[in-house]
Amino acid sequence: MSLSTVMEPTTLVDRHSVVPDLQRERQRASFRTSDLTVAIYGTYDLEKINRIRKLFSHNPKFRLSDLWWMPRSERYLRACERAEEFVRLCRQYKMSDEELTIMQLAVGEDFFLLLHLTMFLPCLQSLADDEQCDWWVPLARDFRIIGTYAQTELAHGSNVAGLETTADYDEGTEEWVLNTPSLSATKWWPGGLAKSCTHCICMARLKIRGKDYGPHPFFLQVRDLNTHEAIKGVTLFDIGQKLGYNGMDNGAMQLENVRIPRRHLLARYSSVDKQGNHKKIGNDKMMYGTMTYTRKQLVMGAGLHLAKACIIATRYSAVRRQFPSMEMDMDSATQADPAEAAAARMGGSESQVLDYSTQQLTIFPLMATAFAMHFTGLWTHALYNKMMAKARMENDFSLLPECHAVTSALKAATTLISADGMEACRKALGGHGFLNAAGVPLHFASFLPQATYEGDFVVLSIQTGRSLLKAVEHKMKGKSPPPPESTMRYIFDFDPVAFMGQQGEGEGGSEAGAVDWRDPQWQKQALEKRASVLIYGTAQDFMAATQKGHNSMRALDDVKIEMCRLTKAHAHVVLHRCFQDKIQELQSHTPPIDTNVIDVLKTLSDLYTLYWIDQTFGEFVLARVLKADHAMPLLQTIKQLLKEVRPNAVAIADSWNIPDNLLNSALGRYDGRVYEALYESTKYEPLNQTDVSEGYYRHIQYILHPERKGGSPQSRL
Amino acid sequence: MSLSTVMEPTTLVDRHSVVPDLQRERQRASFRTSDLTVAIYGTYDLEKINRIRKLFSHNPKFRLSDLWWMPRSERYLRACERAEEFVRLCRQYKMSDEELTIMQLAVGEDFFLLLHLTMFLPCLQSLADDEQCDWWVPLARDFRIIGTYAQTELAHGSNVAGLETTADYDEGTEEWVLNTPSLSATKWWPGGLAKSCTHCICMARLKIRGKDYGPHPFFLQVRDLNTHEAIKGVTLFDIGQKLGYNGMDNGAMQLENVRIPRRHLLARYSSVDKQGNHKKIGNDKMMYGTMTYTRKQLVMGAGLHLAKACIIATRYSAVRRQFPSMEMDMDSATQADPAEAAAARMGGSESQVLDYSTQQLTIFPLMATAFAMHFTGLWTHALYNKMMAKARMENDFSLLPECHAVTSALKAATTLISADGMEACRKALGGHGFLNAAGVPLHFASFLPQATYEGDFVVLSIQTGRSLLKAVEHKMKGKSPPPPESTMRYIFDFDPVAFMGQQGEGEGGSEAGAVDWRDPQWQKQALEKRASVLIYGTAQDFMAATQKGHNSMRALDDVKIEMCRLTKAHAHVVLHRCFQDKIQELQSHTPPIDTNVIDVLKTLSDLYTLYWIDQTFGEFVLARVLKADHAMPLLQTIKQLLKEVRPNAVAIADSWNIPDNLLNSALGRYDGRVYEALYESTKYEPLNQTDVSEGYYRHIQYILHPERKGGSPQSRL
Ligand SMILES: Cc1cc2nc3c(=O)[nH]c(=O)nc-3n(C[C@H](O)[C@H](O)[C@H](O)COP(=O)(O)OP(=O)(O)OC[C@H]3O[C@@H](n4cnc5c(N)ncnc54)[C@H](O)[C@@H]3O)c2cc1C
Ligand SMILES: Cc1cc2nc3c(=O)[nH]c(=O)nc-3n(C[C@H](O)[C@H](O)[C@H](O)COP(=O)(O)OP(=O)(O)OC[C@H]3O[C@@H](n4cnc5c(N)ncnc54)[C@H](O)[C@@H]3O)c2cc1C
Repeated sequence: MSLSTVMEPTTLVDRHSVVPDLQRERQRASFRTSDLTVAIYGTYDLEKINRIRKLFSHNPKFRLSDLWWMPRSERYLRACERAEEFVRLCRQYKMSDEELTIMQLAVGEDFFLLLHLTMFLPCLQSLADDEQCDWWVPLARDFRIIGTYAQTELAHGSNVAGLETTADYDEGTEEWVLNTPSLSATKWWPGGLAKSCTHCICMARLKIRGKDYGPHPFFLQVRDLNTHEAIKGVTLFDIGQKLGYNGMDNGAMQLENVRIPRRHLLARYSSVDKQGNHKKIGNDKMMYGTMTYTRKQLVMGAGLHLAKACIIATRYSAVRRQFPSMEMDMDSATQADPAEAAAARMGGSESQVLDYSTQQLTIFPLMATAFAMHFTGLWTHALYNKMMAKARMENDFSLLPECHAVTSALKAATTLISADGMEACRKALGGHGFLNAAGVPLHFASFLPQATYEGDFVVLSIQTGRSLLKAVEHKMKGKSPPPPESTMRYIFDFDPVAFMGQQGEGEGGSEAGAVDWRDPQWQKQALEKRASVLIYGTAQDFMAATQKGHNSMRALDDVKIEMCRLTKAHAHVVLHRCFQDKIQELQSHTPPIDTNVIDVLKTLSDLYTLYWIDQTFGEFVLARVLKADHAMPLLQTIKQLLKEVRPNAVAIADSWNIPDNLLNSALGRYDGRVYEALYESTKYEPLNQTDVSEGYYRHIQYILHPERKGGSPQSRL
Repeated sequence: MSLSTVMEPTTLVDRHSVVPDLQRERQRASFRTSDLTVAIYGTYDLEKINRIRKLFSHNPKFRLSDLWWMPRSERYLRACERAEEFVRLCRQYKMSDEELTIMQLAVGEDFFLLLHLTMFLPCLQSLADDEQCDWWVPLARDFRIIGTYAQTELAHGSNVAGLETTADYDEGTEEWVLNTPSLSATKWWPGGLAKSCTHCICMARLKIRGKDYGPHPFFLQVRDLNTHEAIKGVTLFDIGQKLGYNGMDNGAMQLENVRIPRRHLLARYSSVDKQGNHKKIGNDKMMYGTMTYTRKQLVMGAGLHLAKACIIATRYSAVRRQFPSMEMDMDSATQADPAEAAAARMGGSESQVLDYSTQQLTIFPLMATAFAMHFTGLWTHALYNKMMAKARMENDFSLLPECHAVTSALKAATTLISADGMEACRKALGGHGFLNAAGVPLHFASFLPQATYEGDFVVLSIQTGRSLLKAVEHKMKGKSPPPPESTMRYIFDFDPVAFMGQQGEGEGGSEAGAVDWRDPQWQKQALEKRASVLIYGTAQDFMAATQKGHNSMRALDDVKIEMCRLTKAHAHVVLHRCFQDKIQELQSHTPPIDTNVIDVLKTLSDLYTLYWIDQTFGEFVLARVLKADHAMPLLQTIKQLLKEVRPNAVAIADSWNIPDNLLNSALGRYDGRVYEALYESTKYEPLNQTDVSEGYYRHIQYILHPERKGGSPQSRL
């Protein structure tokens, strides 16, 4: 049975029930929502997405509102139920790889199957050799085994080379003997490893006859396929509850003399023969491949995640009214005299909080940034595919360093921007934003670790910094520049000597007032110059530190703070470029895209760019791009942009085409019925099952009536 | 029985079990921890604090580690148990008001009794007239009634004048008739109102013969004192689970014709006689009093809360080791060749992550800021007491506006700094920082709403902005300046005309290199000038907007973004001043304080100040305080300060004297046994009760073995 035959396209929301505030907002938009949706998702098959989403939204097993109130054990049980249903759908509809990807987005919750699909399966495909792939990939693809990726240990995460788990080769039996030799070697964190997985890819130090070859990936079964009990020698447990992400059973694993066959070393890049001879195979840089893949995936998601929070904040702010309308006079409204204030209040209606400039400054630049990150995600995805195709087909690895550097920088910057941005949107919801039913708390808490895993901001900034410093070194050594389309080309094109001259002149640079803020070309040059100045400055500091006689580790530490700054600066160069490229692509689109849509995107791109320039104004001064007198005109331009976005804000939010069940928010509903929804949400709360709670009978009554303590307690009848 | 007789002073931690890393850190500190502790807490009775804390830390009913894993319903039950024990201790030891305050800090969890003590009781004391106080305060003080403060409604929070709940006066029965006339009027959020409280102070629009006098406070019983059932006409329920703070039963309340006696209007500032004549009493500005009180309380706590996260991050970073030591050569350690890397790894030990400059930049400036905020909290407390004393004894309300303005600015700025800072510390813990057992997630999540309730950053910035703009107006009108000790005096002393001149000269201001960064006098002037420039600029913009013919509400909105910026700027003027005043006070202390302690505080003060200047470098450029060339020297000075703090970091953390049970963190333990503690923490997790989970039997087995679905399921034996 094919998907399209079962799902007729229906609207999820009864449009008649939409509150007037949102109806009005939608009517006054300058463009058609569906046109912007197409611009956002581009080549994606929107119909397919909608069909698959409906499969989920109409299915009670995927109802996400239980996340608002479920205790952890129930939540895990629910995750198992969703997993079963997920697999049932996969089998029933024989989902393609593309459909499977869409399905993962449609679930809206992190649970063990996602790790199986995004880490275990891709790692197998890239680290196992062809024969091993034939053995294991079909099983994994059909969920006959469920796996995870077990690298991090209690004492080692960022520093992979420091892992302690060992795999000793036993020539006699042609087996590996796996051990976690100490408490601190305990594998810690792998998603699904506690209770769900049957297998994992286990990173362990490969040792042959005492010689240590460092961490290698092993295919390891951890639970019996019949009973699901932990295999002998394997101890598995859950690592406990977390700030979010509690549907996932992140696990710990201890190994004691666990024996696995020689061929369970994943052997695409290194193999060991029966006699225990270790061999490296092919281009070991491709080991980066998996890391680059996961980082690219995170970059692709960062925009969408932030967009969700912005959509909720935008819609709620259009419905939430607080304080007398700005058409009224404030002084009478906030009079000390309550009677007058009351009269004033009754006289006029209140303002939508979306009309307040501060609220706009919180939400709109983040929304604009979500667009920038989303378009950059699409570009990164394409770059990655190109790199892989070249590597596989032509044995050409030239794109690898670029791809590695840019995914590191973007992963570092975008996950942090999203995490902080989601929390800013949450605060903009006022008190109600603290309720799980607001949606953002749950999205925020489960997004947060993305800023940590696969390399945190600092660790990835160091990697980025080193790549960019290498670009400087190449230039200094007179090597030929990277191709024009390279994201590092601008570093090559920068002239540090000219800059030094400019610096000498004191406060050179463009005259205040002369800036055409909304000229993309000016923006590009400003961003590139700021980044270049930071990069060359850091290169200089690094050299100086090395010359001071510091060893390279110490010299590196001397410039880590600078590397964090330049990573952000570099990321914004790329983000800006991808946003601009997208706009250009849409401008030359056939069939042509409505110019109103293009205008909206231009406004958002300007807002994204100028907002972040303003946030780090000092760096642009340092780079002689801006001067003190520019601060006010810049802020004025930003305020002007907020006013331009305002009438289209709700329509822009709608264009992301994220259905209510995925937003999972009483405040961000398409129909704007926020108070009814909050009220309804409390019906789930277990504490509301009785009027008088257990807590009263067991404790509170003795606070109020200490005399009851001795006598007979209040009966519960 | 007196407290001191039951508690012998013991050390909570077995010092022999401290890991060597922390032992070494403590040995190399330049000062005695206990000396800095005294400087931090000053006039507090440290012995009393320690005695009361021990009452809690030795009491299993106050064990906080259950917060790591307990589901919400159990957690509420546990909160009730703690409440009962809390009250038992109060009764047994006849705790004084001061002891009661210390007890609240020692509980370490938010639950309904805290709201009773910090909102209900103080509000009664300040809003009820003397006779009413005689009726109700003793009952509340002895927990014979438990109350909360019910102001916020589903549709109105920030805008108190917009509340919808009504209290109509019935002359015939001399009663008030209370109603929540619509769904959106439902009281929403009051802590403890769902299941715990018997009473509340209910804000309702006072109406007499149809005339609306605006919101007034009423004393309202909500549950029967015998059965604890909701009173007829009162509907109470829990508003659902939240991002944090789930020990608290925040409640909703609907009222339908609930009748209460005339004298249940809290009558210190307005009363209604039998005939229904409404009368205002005394200085109604004192209505601010309660708001100022609660904001002051929040300011007092902000430093301590941030300190907790910094302590955890500091200690863990001293124990956590990652990557080869900086004494080794990196290039060999991160070689592509795993065997070499392994050899390198084995050759040397790894670095404490506290040695990395980026880690220091994350933690140390926040620790320094915690000191600034803590000292400012103490100062605010004293100011508040002075203001109240003057008002009560001398009928002198002159300090009220200042007190109101400064608590608004400080509450706005410090709660935001703490919330963001706690999350930054959490991220600095790497992956383990995401576990509840890390402690910071729980502290962070329950601290977060402090940035929202009692006025969020924007709403309070508007209030601050208006006060500061008024100061400008006074000056322009030639009124006499406020006294020298006023926090707004510097605004008066600023010469906007001279500044305009300076601006005319282009890029005036001090020459690069001429700055003595560590001179407190320079710092003070820099901070004051930056704030003044923002304030005067905003005043000008506001005037311009008014002159454009905007009504005052619209004109105000035109400058709200600027008001948010100037609020931060003003807060830093006050924070810097309080830190400096404290240092001066300690310098002239008898008996004299160890100069090493003074030096540490000076270093921290410099770090606090320069860090925040660097964060908003652009504003200092705008204010002609700094120029582009200053950016690098500023960063170098900050890096130098990080190096100075480093050897004392752990000792500084220890000086806050926060016991392990309050830190409630497996990572921040005094003894540094972090991996053992993490391992132990998993034993609580309900999922770990069985090896094979319920989820397998009910769902996962059908994923792995779809054929079982039809047949007999795997038995659970
Ligand atoms: C929700 C979640 C899911 C996860 N899932 C998995 C999984 O499925 N499989 C798996 O194997 N792992 C998983 N992890 C682990 C994760 O990959 C690691 O936690 C992450 O890589 C960070 O490493 P760490 O914890 O060692 O941090 P640390 O390296 O200990 O970081 C602590 C601090 O030290 C700093 N630091 C570290 N090195 C340096 C340096 N050289 N210079 C300057 N500063 C430095 C960091 O910036 C940070 O501030 C998961 C983690 C989380 C939170
Ligand atoms: C954990 C918690 C406990 C609480 N406990 C209590 C309690 O015990 N008793 C009680 O009565 N209440 C309580 N509250 C409610 C709390 O006081 C309010 O939520 C808070 O005052 C914020 O008001 P709001 O929710 O109406 O926010 P809103 O005003 O709706 O804020 C939404 C957005 O609008 C913006 N905004 C609002 N007005 C303006 C303006 N004029 N200009 C520009 N922007 C504006 C805000 O900045 C914010 O971004 C609690 C709340 C929480 C989260």
